[in-house]
Amino acid sequence: MRMPILNKDMTLCISLAGRPSNIGTRFHNFLYDELGLNFIYKAFTTDDIEGAIRGVRALGIRGCSVSMPFKEAVIPLVDTIEESAAAIESVNTIVNDDGRLTASNTDYEAVAQLIATHGLDPAGSVAVRGSGGMAKAVVAAFRGAGFDDLTVVARNEQAGAALADKYGYAHTTDDPAPGSSILVNVTPLGMRGADEDALSFDPGQIAAADVVFDVVAFPADTPLIRAAREAGKPVITGAEVIALQAARQFERYTGVSITPDQVARASEFSRAE
Amino acid sequence: MRMPILNKDMTLCISLAGRPSNIGTRFHNFLYDELGLNFIYKAFTTDDIEGAIRGVRALGIRGCSVSMPFKEAVIPLVDTIEESAAAIESVNTIVNDDGRLTASNTDYEAVAQLIATHGLDPAGSVAVRGSGGMAKAVVAAFRGAGFDDLTVVARNEQAGAALADKYGYAHTTDDPAPGSSILVNVTPLGMRGADEDALSFDPGQIAAADVVFDVVAFPADTPLIRAAREAGKPVITGAEVIALQAARQFERYTGVSITPDQVARASEFSRAE
Repeated sequence: MRMPILNKDMTLCISLAGRPSNIGTRFHNFLYDELGLNFIYKAFTTDDIEGAIRGVRALGIRGCSVSMPFKEAVIPLVDTIEESAAAIESVNTIVNDDGRLTASNTDYEAVAQLIATHGLDPAGSVAVRGSGGMAKAVVAAFRGAGFDDLTVVARNEQAGAALADKYGYAHTTDDPAPGSSILVNVTPLGMRGADEDALSFDPGQIAAADVVFDVVAFPADTPLIRAAREAGKPVITGAEVIALQAARQFERYTGVSITPDQVARASEFSRAE
Repeated sequence: MRMPILNKDMTLCISLAGRPSNIGTRFHNFLYDELGLNFIYKAFTTDDIEGAIRGVRALGIRGCSVSMPFKEAVIPLVDTIEESAAAIESVNTIVNDDGRLTASNTDYEAVAQLIATHGLDPAGSVAVRGSGGMAKAVVAAFRGAGFDDLTVVARNEQAGAALADKYGYAHTTDDPAPGSSILVNVTPLGMRGADEDALSFDPGQIAAADVVFDVVAFPADTPLIRAAREAGKPVITGAEVIALQAARQFERYTGVSITPDQVARASEFSRAE
């Protein structure tokens, strides 16, 4: 695939990551080309995050996606922190409006939006398995949506306790007893190449639940999602999370809305090398 | 014309100018594509030159072409100033070797190289018409090549005197009497769209000269160059200067040498929009 030769007026968006992947670069440029937007996107790494953000301002770089290990470090370097980033002290998106930098977290936004669009009931009881950065976004989004009954299930007791305490929830290192109405997996269990055959909640828990949410995006049909579908339960997939957060990021950088179909095709392109 | 869709590993080169043109962006990307180099080049402007250079370091931007009004301002921001830039206190090229920035001036280098390759005799007498930034590069290059007899001819007496004094030469506001063996025009006289019919030295001066050098590049055959050719004089054209400086800049950024033919085609492409 080819794109137009560059011109001086192209708007640059970048990503900053400790170990950049090619996915964002291919995703965004695919859609810029399809939509005829005079934009380019390229991944960068840096050993000077402060200098990199100064460069974003000085060079008029429009958007900056932020990955590990910079998600917290950029907080003091921007002008405005939106609630989505403030709630979890983690930034994944910076938008530059004429030198004024606004930071947000589209992972949090995507989860919050899915909780709303799938009509999850704040009176329900939630079990969230995991204690990493994405688990924090998920737990905070449930708190933001008004859920009071949530248990963090994490093998790492210290991390699980810290996460649960931060948002005023319970935690356990053991499998929760069946009874949670909303099951959420935010561990690599079921992820391609990791524990891809592992089921993050057992069949009894699935049978007792109302909704099953797996944040693992690859594959889209994890063992948990397959088991939930077979049990006739409504599901929310990691593919939905990733598509939604990518669309939100794209729209914030360009001002252009994209369809689920466009996200799907760009995602496919971005992973087909 | 189209180029490959971007990937994360592309090396970025940029330019910084108060009012960027599209020429450099098209010139470099044309050759990157033709030579199969995994590079991109894009023009930028900035209102924070210090932040922009900090960004060059932090983002690992490989090369940075510098235009007005930043040519002097970048001097304290780099690690090494080569003689070509130091001699005229003016930078047009910055190369970033793993965070170490080296500044040079390829205009000076190109003029110095043309003085050498055209075999200009340091015992000759030189008349340089002009007193701007490029005139400074030309006068300094003649000084660097060992010429002792040079007169700066400038309508602006103050600028002409300052330029001449800096390099230990004479100056005049009037047309020099015939007798200079090397005539050099570094004013817009003869330039397309400016005083395009103006002859910067009169026929008597041309007849008495050994070599005529016109730094005006567009058109390549200025009235001065045409008159000199008709008088049977060897000429050095602005097209040679611009091609040489562009090739040097390209080679410093990429490590790849380019042919005069490639420079000519890239130049043509860069101006054909």
